[in-house]
Amino acid sequence: MSQQLNGTRVAILATDGFEEAELASPRKALQDAGAQIDIVAPKSGTIRAWAKTEWGGDYPVDRTLDEVKSSDYHALMLPGGVLNPDQLRQNDQALSFTRQFFKDHKPVGAICHGPWILINADVVEGRTMTSYPSIAQDLKNAGANWVDEEVVVDSGFVTSRKPDDLDAFNAKLIEEIDEGKHSKQHA
Amino acid sequence: MSQQLNGTRVAILATDGFEEAELASPRKALQDAGAQIDIVAPKSGTIRAWAKTEWGGDYPVDRTLDEVKSSDYHALMLPGGVLNPDQLRQNDQALSFTRQFFKDHKPVGAICHGPWILINADVVEGRTMTSYPSIAQDLKNAGANWVDEEVVVDSGFVTSRKPDDLDAFNAKLIEEIDEGKHSKQHA
Repeated sequence: MSQQLNGTRVAILATDGFEEAELASPRKALQDAGAQIDIVAPKSGTIRAWAKTEWGGDYPVDRTLDEVKSSDYHALMLPGGVLNPDQLRQNDQALSFTRQFFKDHKPVGAICHGPWILINADVVEGRTMTSYPSIAQDLKNAGANWVDEEVVVDSGFVTSRKPDDLDAFNAKLIEEIDEGKHSKQHA
Repeated sequence: MSQQLNGTRVAILATDGFEEAELASPRKALQDAGAQIDIVAPKSGTIRAWAKTEWGGDYPVDRTLDEVKSSDYHALMLPGGVLNPDQLRQNDQALSFTRQFFKDHKPVGAICHGPWILINADVVEGRTMTSYPSIAQDLKNAGANWVDEEVVVDSGFVTSRKPDDLDAFNAKLIEEIDEGKHSKQHA
């Protein structure tokens, strides 16, 4: 297996209610490609997954938002779930951490309801992207160019709609992280 | 107890994941004031409540969206919960049913995440309102004048932020429904 992401550190930012497959699948794909992954959350201990219609497994938090800065990482990934981004978009630390990846031209992936966070981080205006269809209007109203495709790449910014899109999402996310900084990725 | 809403019919539009207190409390307050309440949902049978951090009770659906038109009712109430409006805002029948109350100048109440539905029903532009704080930016981006108060009344349109606001919400909702149509309530 190719280890093209050897030496690369990726933060997955999440809290209770993240959609389980949308964290577990990209984490495995990125790890298989050689990346080192930290689950970053507002609190220490564990965060609880949401698995389609019920609570899912507990996932250990590797680092809290208090303990990290974006310069510790080469890239950021935001899973969905409905409850998870509803919390994170109200967390100023989560928003400034997220925004800094865009400012620093680093790759960011977001899937499903994850892009809600990006509305409050004020980074979607003028960007071409997708999401779970329920939040499409919110992204359009925030200035995004929303399109209905399984994966959308805009200068290091990778978005997908739902768990069914994960294979395409993971492949593009690895490709963009492998390419490193993108000058047109911005806040 | 005053029965000032005798002869008044009110629809509560909801689906799985509505916040239990935000349906049960206004329903009881409106019934105590003499109103006849229908729980209207996309599907027949029951809908499942969300009770803070876990699934709550099952509530019987009185009428499905297929079976009703807005002219059957004098007013509409939209409970919150994160999962419930995320579904309803993707449902064209729910959106046209909701929008018609605004067009017909009828009182509408919405609490917590319920106002998400109103973004997709395209009725919030220029309206003064509140909501759960997580969706404030989405409402502002849709053109609403968002304010942080326990209850906001704008010409028959009553909004509140969260379950703690229910007493104030219920009182204003009864008052606005008692007043009937409001000429400045509009779509």
